[in-house]
Amino acid sequence: MDKQEQDKLKQKAAEKAASLVENGTKLGVGTGSTVAFLIDELGKRKDQEGLDLDAVVTTSSRSKKQLESCGFKVSELAEVDHLDLTIDGADRFASNFDGIKGGGGALTLEKNVAVNSERNMWIVDESKLVDQLGDFPLPVEVLPISCEQNFRLFKEDGLKPQWRMNGEKRFVTHYGNYIIDLNIDPIPDPYGLADYLDKVVGVVEHGLFLEVCDEVIIAHSNCQIEDRKKQ
Amino acid sequence: MDKQEQDKLKQKAAEKAASLVENGTKLGVGTGSTVAFLIDELGKRKDQEGLDLDAVVTTSSRSKKQLESCGFKVSELAEVDHLDLTIDGADRFASNFDGIKGGGGALTLEKNVAVNSERNMWIVDESKLVDQLGDFPLPVEVLPISCEQNFRLFKEDGLKPQWRMNGEKRFVTHYGNYIIDLNIDPIPDPYGLADYLDKVVGVVEHGLFLEVCDEVIIAHSNCQIEDRKKQ
Repeated sequence: MDKQEQDKLKQKAAEKAASLVENGTKLGVGTGSTVAFLIDELGKRKDQEGLDLDAVVTTSSRSKKQLESCGFKVSELAEVDHLDLTIDGADRFASNFDGIKGGGGALTLEKNVAVNSERNMWIVDESKLVDQLGDFPLPVEVLPISCEQNFRLFKEDGLKPQWRMNGEKRFVTHYGNYIIDLNIDPIPDPYGLADYLDKVVGVVEHGLFLEVCDEVIIAHSNCQIEDRKKQ
Repeated sequence: MDKQEQDKLKQKAAEKAASLVENGTKLGVGTGSTVAFLIDELGKRKDQEGLDLDAVVTTSSRSKKQLESCGFKVSELAEVDHLDLTIDGADRFASNFDGIKGGGGALTLEKNVAVNSERNMWIVDESKLVDQLGDFPLPVEVLPISCEQNFRLFKEDGLKPQWRMNGEKRFVTHYGNYIIDLNIDPIPDPYGLADYLDKVVGVVEHGLFLEVCDEVIIAHSNCQIEDRKKQ
């Protein structure tokens, strides 16, 4: 599929997701190329139908700029009491609705927005679907103070750690931390691994988004858009 | 007990702890008034006996300055492969050797140094001893992005949260985060609470130091210094 066809597909998925946003929603908005189409669609609905959102929170400065250029006022998560719905992409999506996120390095903000949202909808294309989580480096955000110890621990525990780089230097997150990507494929026990990572001192957050997603819009390569809800 | 007597007692406890540090140790050093006496004692041993430490890591800039003025080279935790022994104070110490730390707000650094140390020795005076953890606000370091949501969650869950303040403003940690103190006394199930806090998205670290301490030097009000090792 060439880029033009792919963009058309993302556009269709974004249209579908945007159509599901109701007036008065407190909306969380993620980041990514499909989400960029989503924001455009929300902007169109605002212009054409007067779509009125009670609050908008987002997970990147890029999305923030785009939302503001569409006329939406963007708040910080700490300023809103809750979010009704968050729409975001995902790096991998398993059939049980668990996923991996954080490929872009904003996992901590993304998870904070997600878990403070009553419902989470993800938009993914078919290539993100997996039977079992894996097939993508699992990001773990770690404090610099103990990052070397964390790295060694992960290595000893067979988690195949790799520093996330930005050119020659280590990638630095919004919070001034590093990311260690774990190359485990497949992840035999995502819940056990999440529990393990939650307990490691120095780990700020990890990219396992378990029991977070409620609904997924899947753009299939045959141009079908599937809206799948968690039972 | 007046301050002079108290200082004498702290001095005696610090002497005891310092006497247990062996040549070639990779040493972690905490913070606090008793630890300040400890650093003086280590400096004396360096001058008088040529005490030679393989590495020194500390948890505050205050201790760092004092260590350097005693002629010790201070490294960052990330620069050393491990620590053999860390000596620090504690805010509360239970008879099973579990404790609460972080009254000074440096819990995340303190826990990182502690868990990367093979052995941990605490110096406390008698007033810190409790049968059951509690009797002291439990600090929880939280990311600003979701701090309001965390505060509300803790309130709903009956954990009596209170913002750590610095005058009129919220106290800000070394990592740019806030501290929420939980006023639970006693803490009925410290291990259950630690597990709960580890899982809350937005929590960076908490002040429950469980299964961390191996040995405690207790300064009793009758001027006895007790050296108690975990069995």
